[in-house]
Amino acid sequence: MATATNTNTKVVLNQYVPYGRISSDVFTVQTASPAPSEADLSEHDILIAPQYLSVDPYMRSRLASPEHEHVPAFIKGDAVNGPGVAKVLASKNPMFATGDMISGFDIPWAQFSVLSVVPGSHMDHMVQKIQGPLASVPMDWHMGAIGLGSFTGWYGLTEVGKPKPGETVVISSATGSVGQMVVQKAKALGLKVVAVAGSDEKVQYLKNTLKVDAAFNYKTVSSYAEALSEACPKGVDIYYDNVGGEFLDAVLAHTNKFGRVVACGAISGYQAEKGKLYGIKNYHQIITSQITIQGFFISDYYPTHYEAFVRDLSTLVKEGKFVYKLAVTYGLHNGPQAVIDMLEGRNFGKAVIKVAEL
Amino acid sequence: MATATNTNTKVVLNQYVPYGRISSDVFTVQTASPAPSEADLSEHDILIAPQYLSVDPYMRSRLASPEHEHVPAFIKGDAVNGPGVAKVLASKNPMFATGDMISGFDIPWAQFSVLSVVPGSHMDHMVQKIQGPLASVPMDWHMGAIGLGSFTGWYGLTEVGKPKPGETVVISSATGSVGQMVVQKAKALGLKVVAVAGSDEKVQYLKNTLKVDAAFNYKTVSSYAEALSEACPKGVDIYYDNVGGEFLDAVLAHTNKFGRVVACGAISGYQAEKGKLYGIKNYHQIITSQITIQGFFISDYYPTHYEAFVRDLSTLVKEGKFVYKLAVTYGLHNGPQAVIDMLEGRNFGKAVIKVAEL
Repeated sequence: MATATNTNTKVVLNQYVPYGRISSDVFTVQTASPAPSEADLSEHDILIAPQYLSVDPYMRSRLASPEHEHVPAFIKGDAVNGPGVAKVLASKNPMFATGDMISGFDIPWAQFSVLSVVPGSHMDHMVQKIQGPLASVPMDWHMGAIGLGSFTGWYGLTEVGKPKPGETVVISSATGSVGQMVVQKAKALGLKVVAVAGSDEKVQYLKNTLKVDAAFNYKTVSSYAEALSEACPKGVDIYYDNVGGEFLDAVLAHTNKFGRVVACGAISGYQAEKGKLYGIKNYHQIITSQITIQGFFISDYYPTHYEAFVRDLSTLVKEGKFVYKLAVTYGLHNGPQAVIDMLEGRNFGKAVIKVAEL
Repeated sequence: MATATNTNTKVVLNQYVPYGRISSDVFTVQTASPAPSEADLSEHDILIAPQYLSVDPYMRSRLASPEHEHVPAFIKGDAVNGPGVAKVLASKNPMFATGDMISGFDIPWAQFSVLSVVPGSHMDHMVQKIQGPLASVPMDWHMGAIGLGSFTGWYGLTEVGKPKPGETVVISSATGSVGQMVVQKAKALGLKVVAVAGSDEKVQYLKNTLKVDAAFNYKTVSSYAEALSEACPKGVDIYYDNVGGEFLDAVLAHTNKFGRVVACGAISGYQAEKGKLYGIKNYHQIITSQITIQGFFISDYYPTHYEAFVRDLSTLVKEGKFVYKLAVTYGLHNGPQAVIDMLEGRNFGKAVIKVAEL
């Protein structure tokens, strides 16, 4: 059990990197600090050991600078954190018992952590006991099928994209955390699904397993315009954008009257060198084709839409219309490389870290 | 009368100019062609003499190339055309009588023209007899206060911008054809109005006559970011965009959560040299601030909204909440220069040509 371990492996932020590609020296993997134990708990505290940690594109913003307007930055010298599933090892909080599983948005990337869950505080909303129907779901699903990315894709497609059967939807990063859900929900809604990914292996998976109507590898097509014309002979009605940049520009030129762009992510630019960010030139298409581009940030929609999402997902799963692929990295010490690989698009499936079994 | 004139002054497209700034050799002012007369009329035809012609930014698209997806290109060797008010000099059409005033969207830039108005045809919808309450309005208002630009601003602000009292709206090209309406309707709706224009004279007019809350000359401010911070201490809720480009980028960085960009025009880029169009870099702000950018094209909304617009405008005028400034160029032969001046932002007020009195 926890108390048998004296040291605590942590992934700690070493330096901020405002622009450009990150390398592993952004993080330090600390293995020498002492592990907290039950004796360290005050009232409301729980001692946790994460089992799965989520590796997500928005982490790039959190390590760019100590100040960030929209998501809190990671703190230099502290463990980074993010969505995760953890086991409660000890508790001085009446809401949690030893052995409970929890999910949370700010789980530290450390083998052991103490969380203070004061009722009514911010942290209270960020940590939930996994119970009820959700407790019978495999734990990795909390990172995957019913996790942040999947909910993001479901909300973005249905509420922001406002799809109508028969329309053509284009999805970038289609095998990623968000894209997998968008692709499969769009198919279930009767859309024509055109999926874009960054390797031939991903494209084959999209075609053979997810049964999309068309898919291409954006890295090897001779031009985005040609690939889009061929895949979308009737033009694009909805573009579910996870990448931004030059590909967005190309899609705008192919978007139909009253088309919608779901502005979900812009990973193509997250690692741009200073002053080298690609600028969108086809703004005039937004005017002439009466396009709507709408950004959204999923954390606002948990209270209003998460329950409906879980219900709908369970129907999709029962009807055999949903599978979800994880790209699992084993061991917290491999966390830095998992972040780098995800930002470089080398993960095939939603990127997660499986922390070593206790 | 018409038949007393033997020649017909026309502004004819001389060459297409795909990129860059246009000069007067884009047009030829023809003065030697014979004028049509009553004898030239067939069934459904009317002989017209325009009194006012509208000079609008979207003309730049129409003279860029012979093929254009969204607005029909001008035809090389033919008179250019656009919104205008004309007098009927002779008619073989039962819907129009000699002496009637008409307004239309495709009035040729010629002293005299023959229009075929076949009931049910496309042209039938483009030409209307000015009658009923609209006949008592000064004729120049058909180009101005109740014209295309004013209706555009009214629809864009109210239907696309979805304003709420107390919100801050920023308007570029604020003394232009569209901007004047946006500014005044926004004030009437109880918004905080921040107006942007390209000369100190325009800024003074916005402050002193249109009573905006803040205004600045974008050409002389030290930075867009500073000017916006100062003018919008609570951030921007709605940006009514007539210019696109670098100023749009700056506004995106100042836009509040759930802000809206009304994508109406992008005149800053209409005359860009090939490959030199400014690209929008702040796309990520759309995501993180959950901004909606929506383009629209006013011609679709005449059937559904024009009547409500005219009613609302008449209320605004009665309540002393609306004035409208025209930048009048006299004489058709000065038409080419009027187009150039408008594209360079030298018009102060909505640009129109007053064709010589008959």
